[in-house]
Amino acid sequence: MKKHNFSAGPSILPEFTIEETIKAIQNFAGTGLSILEVSHRSKEFEAVIEEASSLFLELLGAPAGYKVVFVGGGASTQFAYIPQNFMKTKAGYVNTGVWASKAIKEAKLFGEVVDVASSKDKNFNYIPRGYTIPTDLDYLHITTNNTIYGTELKTDIDCPVPLVADMSSDIFSRPIDVSKYAMIYGGAQKNLAPAGVTFVVVKEDLLGKVDRVLPSMVDYRTHIENGSMFNTPPCVIIYSALMTMKWLKNMGGVEVMQRKNIEKAGILYNEIERNKLFVPNVSLEEDRSLMNITFVMNPDYMELEKYFLTFATNRGMDGLKGHRSVGGFRASTYNALPRESVEALVAVMQEFERSH
Amino acid sequence: MKKHNFSAGPSILPEFTIEETIKAIQNFAGTGLSILEVSHRSKEFEAVIEEASSLFLELLGAPAGYKVVFVGGGASTQFAYIPQNFMKTKAGYVNTGVWASKAIKEAKLFGEVVDVASSKDKNFNYIPRGYTIPTDLDYLHITTNNTIYGTELKTDIDCPVPLVADMSSDIFSRPIDVSKYAMIYGGAQKNLAPAGVTFVVVKEDLLGKVDRVLPSMVDYRTHIENGSMFNTPPCVIIYSALMTMKWLKNMGGVEVMQRKNIEKAGILYNEIERNKLFVPNVSLEEDRSLMNITFVMNPDYMELEKYFLTFATNRGMDGLKGHRSVGGFRASTYNALPRESVEALVAVMQEFERSH
Repeated sequence: MKKHNFSAGPSILPEFTIEETIKAIQNFAGTGLSILEVSHRSKEFEAVIEEASSLFLELLGAPAGYKVVFVGGGASTQFAYIPQNFMKTKAGYVNTGVWASKAIKEAKLFGEVVDVASSKDKNFNYIPRGYTIPTDLDYLHITTNNTIYGTELKTDIDCPVPLVADMSSDIFSRPIDVSKYAMIYGGAQKNLAPAGVTFVVVKEDLLGKVDRVLPSMVDYRTHIENGSMFNTPPCVIIYSALMTMKWLKNMGGVEVMQRKNIEKAGILYNEIERNKLFVPNVSLEEDRSLMNITFVMNPDYMELEKYFLTFATNRGMDGLKGHRSVGGFRASTYNALPRESVEALVAVMQEFERSH
Repeated sequence: MKKHNFSAGPSILPEFTIEETIKAIQNFAGTGLSILEVSHRSKEFEAVIEEASSLFLELLGAPAGYKVVFVGGGASTQFAYIPQNFMKTKAGYVNTGVWASKAIKEAKLFGEVVDVASSKDKNFNYIPRGYTIPTDLDYLHITTNNTIYGTELKTDIDCPVPLVADMSSDIFSRPIDVSKYAMIYGGAQKNLAPAGVTFVVVKEDLLGKVDRVLPSMVDYRTHIENGSMFNTPPCVIIYSALMTMKWLKNMGGVEVMQRKNIEKAGILYNEIERNKLFVPNVSLEEDRSLMNITFVMNPDYMELEKYFLTFATNRGMDGLKGHRSVGGFRASTYNALPRESVEALVAVMQEFERSH
């Protein structure tokens, strides 16, 4: 049975990425060695990390002055590194869910945190808008896509202070205006690579402005100066990331991804609206994520919830269970998820509706 | 041409590890999904991380009270995490090279560092002995194997204060008495896995004794409480680590590895001593690493240095170039390196001797 992978992350990757990763594990760049056991200082791997860095910035359309580094430890590690690099006295955070809340918790260890806006009052099922950003903040932190609730900020906001964005789950899903951001970061395990590497895109001239002494690994300048090789990088994960970026470029880049993502999400949201058994978790269309589509049972049919999950799983739909804090279902429709998987899910939803 | 991988790290892994990793990338645990794209919260992956944790402690022979966690970011990240978790006022460090020096640099950010012993006076080509360990230290930090210089502390020292050991490059190479250590840690990319994960074995009751506020990722208790799943772990790297541990257990465990490592190193050190063209970098036999065998040209034949590297490389010997701070050559003979690779290198050294 064909599996359709709707996991929120780690999540579906392009077949090209998987196939090329296997080839490099068998014989990396003609070296006769596996990418799993080749020196990170070999010229062949140095070429990988250099190409991955330049292609990352190219695909993002980053202007001059921005650098990207690949580091280990997950985006959660950055929650504490960001305030250490950027916070002099206070920073603002927009609280749009669990991940934003975790970022806020770590930032409070290093200074004053201003809750600029929050959607906690409605279990984070919308994107706050119309808030005022204080101009005396050292930076404002936002989370552009909220995997758990299925909300997404799909535009680049104007911000009077340096803007730091966690784009773990929507990087490369749409064109962004990088010049509006001081830093963009995220775990790679959604639209980029297997779990195990974090990307940090940063406007270099904003670094080094804080007085506190930074451990070497915390200071982004360490990684920039060393081309992401201050310590041994997660070689095979970065190789996979490069393969995804090559696939992305070959597909036409982020503009094409955005169009496909809008199409896929449109098909599924339409079915959720149409199907009498389901309702969307996010009411406002402009706040609905194109990456994580959350929906719950229509309250009139709540007793069917557990049956639908089994019904869909038995038909090859994987990873559909919603996060416990929202309940219901979540279909993650990242770049690599083909339209046919969305159509297969819609067919399953319709079959379930007919049989109940 | 068959390649013999003498890289210092990332380095040779068992063929079993590579083959099983490829299989799991093709179809992980019968899920129909790749280990590169399966949820870390799937029951199949949760089984992997649980087995990896228990097998790690089993192979080490760790007594009750010790926990292992797998974290990202490399051993270099731990250089700053260790003092944050353990240092109240001062800690001692034994300086046996570049990695120990880097650990010292980070520790100084968090308190007083006592240089308990050092081999810097002779470019770190020996293991300091006979030093006194002050009893008022919060901990003593040692690096058991020094990849660059080819020195190794092959015994478990008696230490009157909690002992923290960086075993990045000799973990699982010999039996150790875990009860003598407060913490054992290291990057996985030598004897365990591809680059991308760090292991931390810690005596749990020593944690939580410091006053400073720790970021969540820094506090080892976070990772223990969450079974290495506080954030998304590097799934495929941990899977590879588990495969190496299964291979190791199947081979007979660390006792068998130690015997094989002594044999392999003996063959190569004997040839270095015998061959008139080469001299060992480390004079004292008891200080010589069984993992990284460093040797240089006999000064009478120094002009041959660059020719030997080419000569050996052309015969399939990979990764033999010595680190720039020592020069000459380095043959890393980790657990997974077969005896035939050492014998092939010896044959090349003898062929080179005959032709000059």
